[in-house]
Formats: sequence, structure tokens, C-alpha cells
Amino acid sequence: MVKYSLGIDFGTLSARALLVAVETGMEVASSVYEYSNAVIDEVLPTSGEKLPPDWALQNPRDYLTALETTVPAVLKESGTKPEDVIGLGIDFTACTMLPIDKDGNPLCFDLKWAKNPHAWVKLWKHHAAQSEANKINQTAEKLGLDFLKRYGGKISSEWFFSKALQILDEAPDVYDAADRFIEAADWVNLQLTGVETRNACTAGYKAMWEKATGFPPKEYFKALDSRFENVVDEKMSRDIMPMGSKAGELTEAMAKRMGLMPGTAVAVANVDAHVAVPAATVTNEGTMVAIMGTSTCHMILGREPRIVEGMCGYVEDGILPGFFGFEAGQSCVGDHFAWFTENCVPVSYEAEAKNKGISIHQFLTEKASTLEPGQSGLLALDWWNGNRSILVDVDLTGMILGMTLNTKPEEIYRALIEATAYGANIIIDAFDSNGVVVNEIVACGGLPERNEFLMQIYSDVTNREWKVASSAQTCALGSAMWGAVAAGKSRGGYDEISEAATKMAHVKDKTFKPNPEAHAVYAKLFVEYKKLHDYFGRGENDVMKRLKRIKEEQLS
Amino acid sequence: MVKYSLGIDFGTLSARALLVAVETGMEVASSVYEYSNAVIDEVLPTSGEKLPPDWALQNPRDYLTALETTVPAVLKESGTKPEDVIGLGIDFTACTMLPIDKDGNPLCFDLKWAKNPHAWVKLWKHHAAQSEANKINQTAEKLGLDFLKRYGGKISSEWFFSKALQILDEAPDVYDAADRFIEAADWVNLQLTGVETRNACTAGYKAMWEKATGFPPKEYFKALDSRFENVVDEKMSRDIMPMGSKAGELTEAMAKRMGLMPGTAVAVANVDAHVAVPAATVTNEGTMVAIMGTSTCHMILGREPRIVEGMCGYVEDGILPGFFGFEAGQSCVGDHFAWFTENCVPVSYEAEAKNKGISIHQFLTEKASTLEPGQSGLLALDWWNGNRSILVDVDLTGMILGMTLNTKPEEIYRALIEATAYGANIIIDAFDSNGVVVNEIVACGGLPERNEFLMQIYSDVTNREWKVASSAQTCALGSAMWGAVAAGKSRGGYDEISEAATKMAHVKDKTFKPNPEAHAVYAKLFVEYKKLHDYFGRGENDVMKRLKRIKEEQLS
Repeated sequence: MVKYSLGIDFGTLSARALLVAVETGMEVASSVYEYSNAVIDEVLPTSGEKLPPDWALQNPRDYLTALETTVPAVLKESGTKPEDVIGLGIDFTACTMLPIDKDGNPLCFDLKWAKNPHAWVKLWKHHAAQSEANKINQTAEKLGLDFLKRYGGKISSEWFFSKALQILDEAPDVYDAADRFIEAADWVNLQLTGVETRNACTAGYKAMWEKATGFPPKEYFKALDSRFENVVDEKMSRDIMPMGSKAGELTEAMAKRMGLMPGTAVAVANVDAHVAVPAATVTNEGTMVAIMGTSTCHMILGREPRIVEGMCGYVEDGILPGFFGFEAGQSCVGDHFAWFTENCVPVSYEAEAKNKGISIHQFLTEKASTLEPGQSGLLALDWWNGNRSILVDVDLTGMILGMTLNTKPEEIYRALIEATAYGANIIIDAFDSNGVVVNEIVACGGLPERNEFLMQIYSDVTNREWKVASSAQTCALGSAMWGAVAAGKSRGGYDEISEAATKMAHVKDKTFKPNPEAHAVYAKLFVEYKKLHDYFGRGENDVMKRLKRIKEEQLS
Repeated sequence: MVKYSLGIDFGTLSARALLVAVETGMEVASSVYEYSNAVIDEVLPTSGEKLPPDWALQNPRDYLTALETTVPAVLKESGTKPEDVIGLGIDFTACTMLPIDKDGNPLCFDLKWAKNPHAWVKLWKHHAAQSEANKINQTAEKLGLDFLKRYGGKISSEWFFSKALQILDEAPDVYDAADRFIEAADWVNLQLTGVETRNACTAGYKAMWEKATGFPPKEYFKALDSRFENVVDEKMSRDIMPMGSKAGELTEAMAKRMGLMPGTAVAVANVDAHVAVPAATVTNEGTMVAIMGTSTCHMILGREPRIVEGMCGYVEDGILPGFFGFEAGQSCVGDHFAWFTENCVPVSYEAEAKNKGISIHQFLTEKASTLEPGQSGLLALDWWNGNRSILVDVDLTGMILGMTLNTKPEEIYRALIEATAYGANIIIDAFDSNGVVVNEIVACGGLPERNEFLMQIYSDVTNREWKVASSAQTCALGSAMWGAVAAGKSRGGYDEISEAATKMAHVKDKTFKPNPEAHAVYAKLFVEYKKLHDYFGRGENDVMKRLKRIKEEQLS
């Protein structure tokens, strides 16, 4: 009898369930639920209150609705019997966190708190906790604590304690009312299993936890704010579960809502990017996995700890047991192109694309692909959403130069793509020159799946071959793989993730190899990118920050 | 009996005839002809040949058609009898020049030459003669000739000898075949009167001529190219006519084609920007006139020569007799906004504007005017068409920074407007701090006429009151005023331009006064603009030029 595992990938705008045959990795059915509240970044739905700049919230109800709609859909589509689904894994954006009450209910479900934006889920790209992040960084430095080294020297406003501290700063009543703060990933697992678990991946990558020493000391949290001293013990947990463990089993109630069997094994939750690594076939050091979607994460395994400027972090056992998992990131990739098509594409182009029956992205790609590298004369800094690696600075903003009166939309579009490729190249260089050797690259995610033009530019800019994972849904596939490991061999799954990867994960035959002529031009353009990257990003001209300050003054 | 004068303003995309009552300046009729070939910057119409970047040509046939259609139209519209039209003046973009044969016919009218782009009119914004401009500047410096001081230290690729030398460099056969090179303004006057005249305004501002010493010496032209030694005597004329002179009288043939009387007085031709000065009421020192359209010219009169960085030039008697006329310029103003609306405005905005029954410019203005200064966090350098004053560098290109994923089109639109205001402020500062005192400003041209939002930004940025000329057609009005002076008092006109200005020119009651709060923010933003202006514009980071070089290599 064929056994199946379910992977559920909670993304920025939607969640996807994928049903996978455990033996082969064949993806037999998938279903997507678009969050009805999407990203809440303009107005709070319950109050109509305008949110300040840099806020990004979500509604946890969307996560539950996703479970209840996508899982029955994949079972139905594939005709799979619930008893043949042996395991279930989920992955999530991170740090995406929320305050919950004693019973595990989100505070924002409580009418008393529903109109307070701090009671809602703070999505990964909520960037309004920068002053808290600054304090966290400065205080660690002042106290001579060196855990920041693991995170490229700085932690970001996106992270768990930045967000928690912002709640304490701006809404102490919400802070007090919160029984616990929890990653959305772990909160969904709590709903599934009735048991609260905390996963090592988000703890390590987003909450400054490490296997050997745990969380930073209480004195440190006290130095941030006396009320914050016991945040870990009062509002979190020190009980962190390694990757590949079983979080628990599906409760009767949830099994019913999802159409599965009670007792189905549920894997410890994971982060969307990290879970993609084994799904991209990688279970050993030397191969970087680039998970390219709205943003890009760069993952690579190593045998030893290394300090790499501006990486998001390294975490022992954080990706696969037995390895240090290194992560870096670009906070604006697919989002960058979406911003462009939503805000900057003229009506004539839309009409022409419509005439041709293709999407505006395809249309722009067709036009942009007729250009030679360097032909537009344009150069952009891909900082529309700040810079995660290697500058770790959300206050940086986008820049483009080289425009003339003859500049065309497809030239700008191409320049934005190129900018993200230069950004990726900065990261690869940072790994490579700090002992985290990059011998091979496998891409996965939405962009490599649908944009060969972009992949060729990445190959030409980096002068490296880029392979692409076979699965169009590596995150969900990875979650299903961990679900199969949570079930274990005895229930028809696997005991080791490397086994699961061998059987269930594949790369495509088609790879992207650098064109030497294109690379020669891009090498020159990259020199220019690097110069501007350092000028605007390393303090020589902090104009972007000063403009942000003026903007904030004008909005306050 | 009421007497009339005709002004004909030859712009970048169209020509306009304006019939004006000599006694009052009342504008009784106007008519516009849109050039059928507009600006030829992509493909040469006769051959389908793709033009290289930075080229911009025109078809002189458009100028003749303009005369033959607009003049009869204004006579008809107003019911004016030809014998009541006492004078006629024209003004033109400059330097807009062409090669002609012995009989005054454009070489491009000759089938033998029609397919050679160098036989066509090189429009002011033809920017492909930069290497010639560089040579002209470097050679003057090498020979220790100091005439460049009059032109802010550098002459531009737009100018007469840059363009003529490009013809010699790239098409020596066209150079040889040309009997003369002539400003389009003077060529049209030649058609009107049958007499070739050369006006002091273009000679002084665009061809390095000065009243006291004439053109640069032959040795200088020889040093540029031995074949160029006698360019003035062989291909031009040393007989330069001052402003306010009569160029001649309308020929029988042209009078018939235009519906006027033979013998009608024709004024020496003028430049569109310069002719606007008296039409904006200015006939004395201390008041800057800003002629704001696709580009902006800044004109001011002084009693003494002064060296101002990057000004386009000062010419004795070049604007009004008895004064040094100072000129500076911004090469991309209205063009900037047009580029934006053509290339960067999304379909949803176009649809909303259409719904509201307003133009996209109006729609964007409505949205942009709800923003506070600095609120967008954006800052742009207005160099989409290079920088004329004060950097005199066509190889500079546009830049914008501060974008986030929440950046909206109206924010970019506003940032582009602000950038041109900062550019204007740089120019005003340069005049003011070099002894060409700016006490007052009068704006004229298309932009102040229709864009109060923009004018308020200019006032807020510069912290000065901006007045606006009453006439919506100051160039054509100015030409009509010079036409009345060409006719003279004896024929019912005026003997002096100051008299004509007192009677015929007016400013509006409504002026734009700076808002102190807005200025306080703009003062901070201007500091940032200036820093980037100097960084990218003064050699600290020549990335724009290097990108242009890479672009040229890729296109060649």
C-alpha cells in the first residue's frame, strides 16, 4: 500500500498543502489557500486604524482556515484515504510571532484585544521594531556578550525579541496580558497536536538560542528593560525540540476538521527556507540552497562554526542534525518585481501583454531578454525592503540610477532583477571568503520555477552554475519529508532525513551555466554595485536613513 | 486703426503663431502646428535607419508647414486684415542647426543627401557630439584661450561648433557638400525675407561669438581639425545682427504662402527662452526669468560681466541691448514628468484618471499634493537628460533613491518635481553667490501656466516668491514684441523693447510665496540633494559615466 505524507507550507500570502508519496517523492496533489487578510500593512481590519509605516501583521484565523480547506482538498483531489497519510509537517515564514493566552488562543481573537494591533501576528516583514533591535544590539555589545557574532554581528528588527520588546515598549498591557509569545509555526503545531513545542530552527535563527548555551542570560534581558528580565521563563519556553523530532500527534478535533486520522504523526515545525534544504537534495556541506520567492534565503551546511559578515545566523543542528546551518538572506526579491509591475508598468504594456495573452511579468521578460547586459545603462540597489545580508539594516532603501529620457520599463525591470543577482553575489562572496565554501548552488522556490531569464542572469552575474530543484514546492515537500521522518520507518516513513532526501528529493536536468561574455560585463557592473553598496550601506553617506527620519517626522 | 504684430515660436514638438495687439499686448488669436516628424530620435524616416543613442533630429519641412498653416489660421480666426499686421518676429529652440546648400535649401531636401542623418536638422537636444564638445573644451584650455569662462567653464554638446564638428568627424562628405551651417532660426528668417541674417543671441550663446572680439581665432579651429580652420568664413558668417534689428521684409512669395502683406517687417530671429524675458516684463537687472517647459532656461540681466559656474553663458546685448544677458539651464523638466507618465504610471491610475475625466498629470498632482514634503522618503537627481547648469555634463544620468515596497507612483512623481526644484535652487545660488544678484523671479512657459502645485514646490524649495507672467505664450508674445520693434514707431510699433514691454507685457496677480514649514523640510532635503549632486556630478563617483560607456560598448 502506498503511503503518503503531508507538507503544509505557510507563506507570506497563502498556505499550500502538498500530498507526497513517501517512497518516491511524487507529488500527488496540492491545494493553496490565499489568506483572506493577506498582509495587513495599511489598516487594522477590526478598527480601521491606519498602521504606521513598516508594520506588517497577519490574522491567525487565516492559518486555521488554510488547514481546514487545503488538507481536505488534497485528499479529495488524489482520492487518498486518511489512514494512508502517515505524517504531517509544517513550515512557516519566520520570525512570525504572536501573543497568546493561557489556552493557546491568539490575543487578537479576544474582543478585549482585537483592536490593538500589538495583539495580532507580527509577520516576518514587520519592520517597525528597529529601535528595539538597535537596543538589543547595543546592549549586547555594552555587556560584552558575544552571541551576536553567530548572527553576522547584528540581529534584525524582524526577530523574535525585537518584536516582543516592541510590544513591551508600545503596548505593555498587551505584553502583560500575553501568557506566552510564540512563533506562528509552533502555534499552528499547538493547534494540531494540543501540545506546545518550540522548534530549534526558529529558536536558533530568530531568538538567539543555541544548543550549547541556550538563550542569553537573564541579566541581558534585564538590561534591555527590567520588565523583560524573565521574558524567556515567563513568556516562552526553554524546552527546544531538535529538527526531525515528532512534535506530537493529531488531536481528534483537528483530525476531524482536516479530514485526517487522529494520531497522525506531526513533525516539529520548521522555517520555510530551512525546510527546503533537504527538499533541494542537500544533506551535506558545500552546496548552497537559494530559496527564491518574495525574498530569498541562502542556506548552507558546514561542519564548523564560522563568522560571516551579516549572515542571518548559524545554528548547530538548525537545518540538519550534525551540521552547523548557515543562513543569509535578501529581504526583497520577488516582492521587488511585484512592486514594479504594480506601480510602474504603463497602460500600453499592460494592453500589449493582454493582447498576447501573457502575464505582465512574461511580457516584460520577453522584452528585457532582448537586451544585452549593460545595455540599459541602469544600476539598482535592491534595498526596497532594507538589506538583510550582509549589511543587516532595514533602514536602507532602494536606489536606481542611469535613467535617461529613453529609458524603458523593461530596462528598469531587468535592472531590478540584476540588482538582486548582485545582492546574491555579495552573499556568496561573503560565505566563500569566510571558510563556508560554496562549491555548488541549487535554487528552489517560485522564481527559479517560472523565470529562466532571471536564473540565467544569476548564473551570468555569479559566474557559477545554478541547478534547480525538481519540485515546484520544495518547502511543502521538505515539510512532507520531515513528516515522513516524524512517522518513522515503523509507520512506513524514514528514520533519517538523508534517507528521505535520497528517495523523495530531486534536481532538474536543466541547469543554468554562465555565459562568459555576459559575465565579463556583469563583472564590471558588479564593481559599480559594490561601490554604491558600500557608499550607501556602510555609513559613508547615510542619506537613506536621514530621509527615513525626515519621513517619520513628517508622518508623526 | 488697431495694429497687430505676429510672434511665431518654434518649439521642440510644435510651432505656435500668436497675433498680438501692439498697443495693449492683447493676444487676439493663436494657432499651433504639431510637427509631423516631431523629434526624430529613433529611426530616420527616409531610410528606416536606426539612430544611435543621444541623437535628436528634425525635419525643416515642418517649419515651413508651420508658417503656412498657423499664420493664415490666426488671421482668419481674428478676422485681421493682412495690412494691419505691421511686424513679425520668430523665436526658436537653440542650438538647432542644419547644413544648407548655396540656394539656402536644407541638404536633407536633396535626394542625394536625404538618407544621411547628418544632412538633417540637429535639434537642441541632439547629444551625440559629446566627444566633439570635449575636444572643443580641452583644446581651448590647451591653447590658453579664455572664452570658455563666459560659458561657465565648458561648452556643451548641444552647441553649434560641437554639432558642426560632429558632421565633419562622422560625415565629411556632408560637411563638404554644405555651403553653410545655419541656426534653424536664421534659416526660417532666410525663407521669410530672402536675406540671410545671423542673430547675436544664438551666435553669442551657442557659437562662442562675442560683441567685442567676434568668434574664436582661426588657429583655434585649426587646432580642432585642420579642415575646420575656416569654418566661420567658409560655412557661416561674421555679420552678426543685434537684437531688435530688422532682419528684412517679407518676400512676395512667402507673403502669399502665409496670407500676409509683402514688405511686412521681420525682426532678427531670437531664441525661445531669451525672447521671453521682455515678455515676462523684465527689461532691467535683478530679476530672473525662468522659462519652464520641456526644459527650463534661467535668464537674468546684469550691467557687468561675471563668471558663474556652469552657466550656459553671458552675452553682451544677447538678451537686451545695453545689458549682459546671463543664461543657465536645466535640460530636463517637463520632459522628466512626461517620461514618467509615459513609462511608469500603472493601469489602475490611468483608469482612475479616466473615470474622473482628468489628465494623468492632474490625477498624479491631486494625489501628490496630499503628501507633506519629505513624507515619501524619496530623493531624485533630475539628470534624465544630463545636467546643463551648473555641472555642464550630458553624461550624467537620472537617479532616485529611498524607494520601499510601499512607494507609490505619486510619490515618485512628486520626487521628480522636487528634484527639478532643487536643480533650480542650485542655479539661483550660483548666480546669487557670484554677483549676479537675484532679487525677484518671474516664471513663464507651459509649466507655471498649468501647474500651481509645482510652482508652490519651487517657492517652498527656493524660499522665494515666484511671480508668473500673464501670457501663456511668452515666447510667441516676445517675438511679437520684437516684431513691433522691427516695424518701429513710424509704422505703428515701438522704437525700444522697454517701451514694448511696458505696454505689451504683464504679470499675474497671483504669486507663489514660500511656506516656512515646508521650506524648513526642503532645506534639509536640499542638503542631501547637494551632497549627492556633488558625489555623482563632480567626479567622486563617476559611475554614471562608466555605465554610459559600458552601454555604448554593448550597443556598438
